[in-house]
Amino acid sequence: MRRGSIALAAATVATGPARAAETDVPPWMLEQGTPVDELPYGSPSPFEKSVVRRPHETLPFPTSASVLTPLQDLEGIITPNGLHYIRSHAGTPAIDPAQHRLLVHGMVDRPLSFGMDDLARFPSISRLHFLECSGNTSFYKASLIKPNWNVQDTHGLLSCAEWTGVRLADVLAEVGVKPGVKWILAEGADAAAMTRSVPIEKAQDDAILAYAQNGERLRPEQGYPLRLFLPGYEGNINIKWLRRLKLGDQPFETREETSKYTDLLTDGIARQFNFVMEVKSVITRPSPGRGPAQPGFCEVTGLAWSGNGRITRVEVSTDGGAKWGNASLQEPILSKCLTRFRLPWTWNGGPATLKSRATDETGMVQPTRESQLAERGPNFYYHYNAIHTWQIAPGGEVKLAV
Amino acid sequence: MRRGSIALAAATVATGPARAAETDVPPWMLEQGTPVDELPYGSPSPFEKSVVRRPHETLPFPTSASVLTPLQDLEGIITPNGLHYIRSHAGTPAIDPAQHRLLVHGMVDRPLSFGMDDLARFPSISRLHFLECSGNTSFYKASLIKPNWNVQDTHGLLSCAEWTGVRLADVLAEVGVKPGVKWILAEGADAAAMTRSVPIEKAQDDAILAYAQNGERLRPEQGYPLRLFLPGYEGNINIKWLRRLKLGDQPFETREETSKYTDLLTDGIARQFNFVMEVKSVITRPSPGRGPAQPGFCEVTGLAWSGNGRITRVEVSTDGGAKWGNASLQEPILSKCLTRFRLPWTWNGGPATLKSRATDETGMVQPTRESQLAERGPNFYYHYNAIHTWQIAPGGEVKLAV
Repeated sequence: MRRGSIALAAATVATGPARAAETDVPPWMLEQGTPVDELPYGSPSPFEKSVVRRPHETLPFPTSASVLTPLQDLEGIITPNGLHYIRSHAGTPAIDPAQHRLLVHGMVDRPLSFGMDDLARFPSISRLHFLECSGNTSFYKASLIKPNWNVQDTHGLLSCAEWTGVRLADVLAEVGVKPGVKWILAEGADAAAMTRSVPIEKAQDDAILAYAQNGERLRPEQGYPLRLFLPGYEGNINIKWLRRLKLGDQPFETREETSKYTDLLTDGIARQFNFVMEVKSVITRPSPGRGPAQPGFCEVTGLAWSGNGRITRVEVSTDGGAKWGNASLQEPILSKCLTRFRLPWTWNGGPATLKSRATDETGMVQPTRESQLAERGPNFYYHYNAIHTWQIAPGGEVKLAV
Repeated sequence: MRRGSIALAAATVATGPARAAETDVPPWMLEQGTPVDELPYGSPSPFEKSVVRRPHETLPFPTSASVLTPLQDLEGIITPNGLHYIRSHAGTPAIDPAQHRLLVHGMVDRPLSFGMDDLARFPSISRLHFLECSGNTSFYKASLIKPNWNVQDTHGLLSCAEWTGVRLADVLAEVGVKPGVKWILAEGADAAAMTRSVPIEKAQDDAILAYAQNGERLRPEQGYPLRLFLPGYEGNINIKWLRRLKLGDQPFETREETSKYTDLLTDGIARQFNFVMEVKSVITRPSPGRGPAQPGFCEVTGLAWSGNGRITRVEVSTDGGAKWGNASLQEPILSKCLTRFRLPWTWNGGPATLKSRATDETGMVQPTRESQLAERGPNFYYHYNAIHTWQIAPGGEVKLAV
C-alpha cells in the first residue's frame, strides 16, 4: 500500500517521436483564416467529429434512449453541454418558456403557479455537480457485457456541469408547507409525464430548481426551461421539464418507483427509494478505443465521485489489485461533483491490469465486483458501483476485463 | 459600511404575477418529443437564439474582430465554449492536429519539435481560469461610450473555462533551459503569426500548454489544437494555435508589444510588458437590455476576478457609492478565476445607482473611475479596471452611467 509501490516517473518524459527542430511554415499561415465576426455560437473542430454522444445499444427506441457521454475523450471535470448524457422516455418536448409554468400544490398553504419570470426573481444559486443514471455500469451480469466496450459504453451515463437555479426550499417557503408533509411528487412536462416522489428532507436541503447549466440556459434535452436537480441522487429523479410539485404525507408510488428504479434483493423484496449514487470511480485513460498504450511514461487518469459528499482518496493499481498507490486529486474537490485523479506510471510493456478505488468523506470505499455481486445477489440492476478493471495486453491494446 | 445599510430581503419573495393553481396540460405533453438517439452534439433551445456572441462595433473587419460574450444572459462562472469571447487578428486557421507541431528552440540544450501525440504523453493538469482581453472596458474616454451599451458591449471580452493541458515547465525541462534565459517568444500558427514575449518566471510557474477547454478539445477560434495559457495575464499573450517557443535572454520586442498592448503614461513613456489583469468586477443583473427592473425583491449579481489571485470581497452599492454592503461570494472561490457574487436587495422603485467594488487576496481594491483616470492620464487604453456603474430610472430602465 506504499506510494512507492508504483514506479513514479520523473518530471521529464521520454517524448519518443519528437522530431528535431524545423522551421517549415504550415499552409494555414499563408492565408487569412475563416471570419470570426459572424460566429454567434461556435462548434468543435471538424477534426473532432468522432467525439460525440451515441445511444446505448440496449435502448434503441428513438425517443426512449440512453445517450452516452464520450468520457474517453474528455479532460478535467466539466462536461460540455453538447455532450452531456441523455436519458429520455418520450423524446424532447419543444417548450416555449413563456408558456411554461410550475404548479406547486397539495399540502400547502397557498397553491401557486409560477412562470419562468416569477422563478427568476428568487435568489439564485450555482453548484458544480455530477449527474449519473442509476443504470450506469449496470452490465455486471456477464451475459450483458461485450468485451469490446469502452468507457463510453460502460460509464457514459455520467456527466458534470455547473447548475444554476433557485433553491426549492425558497419556493416551498413561498407556498407554505403544511405540517405532516413527507414527500413531494415531481412531474415533468414531456409526453411520458415522468413522475417521482422526493423526500421533503432532500427538498428542504440542497435541491435546486435549475434553469441553467454551464452558464447558459438548460439544453432542451436536459429539461429546458426547468428541471429539478437533486445533488447526488440518481439521474431519473432529477425531473426534466418540471411542471408540477405536489406535497403529500406519503410517497406517490409512481411507475418509475414501482416497476422501475428499484433493486431486487436476494430475499425477493425490492429496495425502493434508493436514491444516492454511492462512491465510484473509473480510469478514462488508458482505456479502450484510444489506440494502443505506449511503453514508458503513461499517466493514469480518471474520474471519481460520490453522492454522499467529497472524494477524499483514489487509489490506483496496475497489477490487478495486489499493490495500490494514491493518485493525486485535482483541485477543486467539491461535494457531489466529479473529481479528476491522476497517477504517473511507467508502463514496462508487459501485461497490466488497471483498477481504481475511490473513498469518500463518509469513509465509504468502492467494493470489489465479487463482493458486490455476492452481497446483492443475482437480481439487482441499479446502483452498481464496484471497482472497474481495464486490461492492457503486451501489444498495448486496452480491453474491458470480463 | 454596515451590511445592514442595504435593505436585505427575507427568504420569501413577493412573486407578483404567480397565478393561482391550475391543471391544464400543455400541448407538448400530448405527443412524443423529438428523438434523442441521434443527437451526437446538442445545441441550445431555439428560444435562446438571442443569447449569442456578436462583434464589437469598433472592430468590424471579418477576420480581425472582437467578438463579445453575452454576460447579461449567463449564470454561474462557466462560459459555454460556444459563447467564449474571441479576439483574432487573421481569422481562424483550419489546423489538422495530426500535422500541427510545436517547435521549442533558442537557448535550449535539445531543440525539439513536438506533435500533439507527444504532448499528450506529458502529465496533464486542469485549472478553472478567466480570460480577459486587455482592451476589455477600454471605453473610459467619454467619446467612445455609447449610452445604450449593455454589459456585453462594456465587459464582453471576458470568459471563463476549465483549461486542460500540460505544464509548460515540464516541456521546458525536457528541452533543457540554458543558463541566462529570461524570455520566451511564443508564436501562433495563424496568418498573423501572432507573437509575444513571455517572462521565464511565468513560464516556469503556472503556464499551461492547453489542448482542452471545458472538457473537450479547444474550439478552433480558441487556438485548436494548442494554445499557450498564462493564468491571469491579458488575453493577447495567451497565444492561440501555438507553434513555436524560442528561448532567449531578452524580450523579443514584437509588434504586439511595441505598437500595441502598451499603456501610454502621462509622461509620454509607454508602460510595456504590463501583463496582469488586475482586480475587477461588474454587475450582470440588473443590467441594460434585460427588460425593466421590477420593484420589490431584486437580486443583484455579477462577476469578480483578479489576475493576482483569489477574490476576497465584493461590495455593492445601490446609492451611487454612499453606502456599501458585502455581497456573498459563491463557492468555489478559485485563484485567477471568475467569482460569482450576489446581494439580496429590495428596489423601492425610485432612481438607483448600482456599483460593485472587488478586493483580491493581495489587498488590491478596484479604484473609482475618477481616480484611475486622474492617475493614468488621458492616453492609456488597456487595463482599465475601475468601478463600473449602472443606473436604474424610476420606470425600471437600466442604463450605462456615462
